[in-house]
Order: sequence, then structure tokens, then C-alpha cells
Amino acid sequence: MAGEKNAGLLLLDFWVSPFGQRCRIALAEKGLPYEYVEENIMAVKSDRLLRSNPVYKQIPVLLHDGRTFIESLIILQYLDEFFPDTHPLLPADPYERAHARFWADYVDKKVYGSGSKMYTEPQMQTNKEMVEILKTLEGELAEKEFFGGEHGFGFVDVALIPFTAWFESFDKYWGIKVAEVAPKLVAWAARCLERESVSNSLYSPQKVYEFAGMMRKDFGNE
Amino acid sequence: MAGEKNAGLLLLDFWVSPFGQRCRIALAEKGLPYEYVEENIMAVKSDRLLRSNPVYKQIPVLLHDGRTFIESLIILQYLDEFFPDTHPLLPADPYERAHARFWADYVDKKVYGSGSKMYTEPQMQTNKEMVEILKTLEGELAEKEFFGGEHGFGFVDVALIPFTAWFESFDKYWGIKVAEVAPKLVAWAARCLERESVSNSLYSPQKVYEFAGMMRKDFGNE
Repeated sequence: MAGEKNAGLLLLDFWVSPFGQRCRIALAEKGLPYEYVEENIMAVKSDRLLRSNPVYKQIPVLLHDGRTFIESLIILQYLDEFFPDTHPLLPADPYERAHARFWADYVDKKVYGSGSKMYTEPQMQTNKEMVEILKTLEGELAEKEFFGGEHGFGFVDVALIPFTAWFESFDKYWGIKVAEVAPKLVAWAARCLERESVSNSLYSPQKVYEFAGMMRKDFGNE
Repeated sequence: MAGEKNAGLLLLDFWVSPFGQRCRIALAEKGLPYEYVEENIMAVKSDRLLRSNPVYKQIPVLLHDGRTFIESLIILQYLDEFFPDTHPLLPADPYERAHARFWADYVDKKVYGSGSKMYTEPQMQTNKEMVEILKTLEGELAEKEFFGGEHGFGFVDVALIPFTAWFESFDKYWGIKVAEVAPKLVAWAARCLERESVSNSLYSPQKVYEFAGMMRKDFGNE
């Protein structure tokens, strides 16, 4: 049965993408085998990618049984709704679901949004913003083991954890010492990395650092 | 029973906000009475707003039974999950839900995102972008009566309809003739306006036009 239900799961992805990594982690947590297809988005985008996502022409794209799913948080919610029996990512309570959606959306708007600006805008402003963002997340995590609270590793954890592989680059390139600004967040990231779903989906901070360096060059903000 | 369940529904809002209007429409479609509180966000933000939404300090904020909900699309999904018995906004099928979430997110990223840039960036580029966006939405709507398809007026309809009150301003200020670029979209907007939930929640294009003119002055892109 389970074998039929997940027939034809295929992920178009790019190794260092935090959004793609979210999907890989969710698929692993749910124990769903899938075909992984690396898209070389820095060079030529494949016809399959352009056909699957004509609106954004971006990864990740999940294909399932001939249907197409785009936007990582929407993919996560789809997996949660279609495969509810293994490791629910969102809690059942409507308030808690809204709360989790809020913080995952915060990660998109702020960690990714402000993180991207670090490559293009003046350092002093973007550093200040990122420090505020890290502190806000530290405050939301507080003493919890995971952002999912009593439900454990969940939607917000999956949404945020890929970005922690960039923390070392924050320090080396921008001088933001995440371990001092948000020590609980760093401890949380280490706990997440103990999960196979996470450690198998992320790359080493060193590889991310090299990639971030290339992006800095490309955007002329070296 | 219903009277108890929606006890303490209160919306902090600002009259012309498309995001606030989404919440008003959803509450009306679901037949939920609530207290409406106008926040004068152009002047001084209230203590209640700052306390309720310390992260963004923005409307709309929905308060329900002492709990706080932020971000209009998250509020819509909360209402749908907590009050599932009247006018579901999202369909039941996981694929269709993902599809609706994708297009509502597209409205946020593109109609709002590019729409905002029209106040600050060079007109030729932003006009071209907005025309592309309108055509993309026209393509998604196609021959359907509503974006919700066979389910009728739904999540994407609620997400998009408030922005149509700005179409007249698109023409008068930026020369984008929406009725020529996307005639089906304009016909759809007229169909939506036949619903009381919509007509009671939106303001006239003339009032929006005056407000847009004020924003153009403020952003120095007059």
C-alpha cells in the first residue's frame, strides 16, 4: 500500500539549496523513498524543470504521480497531508498550526530575505538586521528542545535547520558570531544534526562557505 | 455552540489593506461576527497592536479567545481549520490544497511584491513585470468562474480580490490598462463583487486611487 502511495516521487533539487534540503529532510522523516535529480541551476536549467515550474523556473520541484508541487513550505504541507501516518510535521491543533506556519514564514521572510541582502547591501545594516533575526528566533526557541515543542522536531525545525549550515559563513565573511548572539540556536542546530534526516540532507559548513564565497564574488559584494 | 466557538473574535485592521480585507471577506463568508478595530497605522500604532504583533508591528492581527494570529494567509487557514463547517476556503484534496496555496503565495510574492515596487522603482521595468503577472493570473483563471474552480469562490479568490480595487490606479498612474491585458480577470473581479462578503470589505477604486496617490507622493515616485 505504502509502496503504491508514494509511487513516482521525484525531487528536482540543487545540493546547497536550503529550500530543497527542507524537502529532503521531510521526505526522510516520513520514510518516503524518492528519486533525487540534481539540477545544475547555476548553468543550464533542464527542460523538465522549465516545464514543471514555468512560473519561477526554480528548484525545488516535487513531482508525485504526475503532479507538480512548488515552493518548499507548500511541498512540506502537501507531504504532511498526503502522508499523514508517518512523522506529522504540523501539529493537529489549529492554533499550534498557525503558530508553526507563522515562524516558518518568518524564516522565509527574514532569514532568507535578509540573508540574501547580505550579498548586495551595505554590511552594517544587514548585519544588524541578521543579529536581530537570530535573537528573535532564539527567543521563540527559548528552553524548548525543538521549535515543535512537545511534538518534537517539526515544521519550523525543518524550515530553519538548512540555514544553520550558513552560520559559519556569517562569521567568516560578515563577522556575525552566531554562537555568541544565539547560543541556544546553535545548541538546537547540533541536536537537529543528530537526526539522520538532517545530517544526510545538509552539506558541511566548509562547502557552504566556499559556495557563499562564490556568491559574494558574483554579486560584487566581496 | 457556534456563539461560543467564535467568542472573542477581534480584528485589528486598516481600511485599505488588502491583507486586512482578505480576513474581513473570510470572516464574512464563514458568517462569523467579530469586533472590527481600525488601526491608524499611518499615524500612531496602538499598544494593543504592538503587543499583539511585536515581530512585524503590522495589521491585520486576528485575536481569538486570547490567542493571536498574524499574516493574512495564515489567518485564513486558521479560520478554515477552526471553523470548518461554513464555506471551506481550501478544498479537501491535498493536491488541490497545494495548488491553491501556490497561487495565493504567488499573489503575495508577485501582485503585492511587484505592486509595491511600482512606488519606488523605474516605471518601465515594473510595468512590464505587472503586465506579465496579470497575464499569468489570467492564464490560471482561464475559463473558470472562480479560481476555486468547481469548489467556487475560495482561498485564491479571497487572496487576490482585494488587489483588484487598485486596477484603476494601475491605469491612471502607470498607464496599465488591465481590462485589455487581462479581460477575464476583470470579469472575474466583477463576479466576486456581487458577493456581499467582498462588496462590504472593499473600498471604491476612487478611494484607493486617492490613497495610492498619497503613497506615490510619500515614496517620491510621483
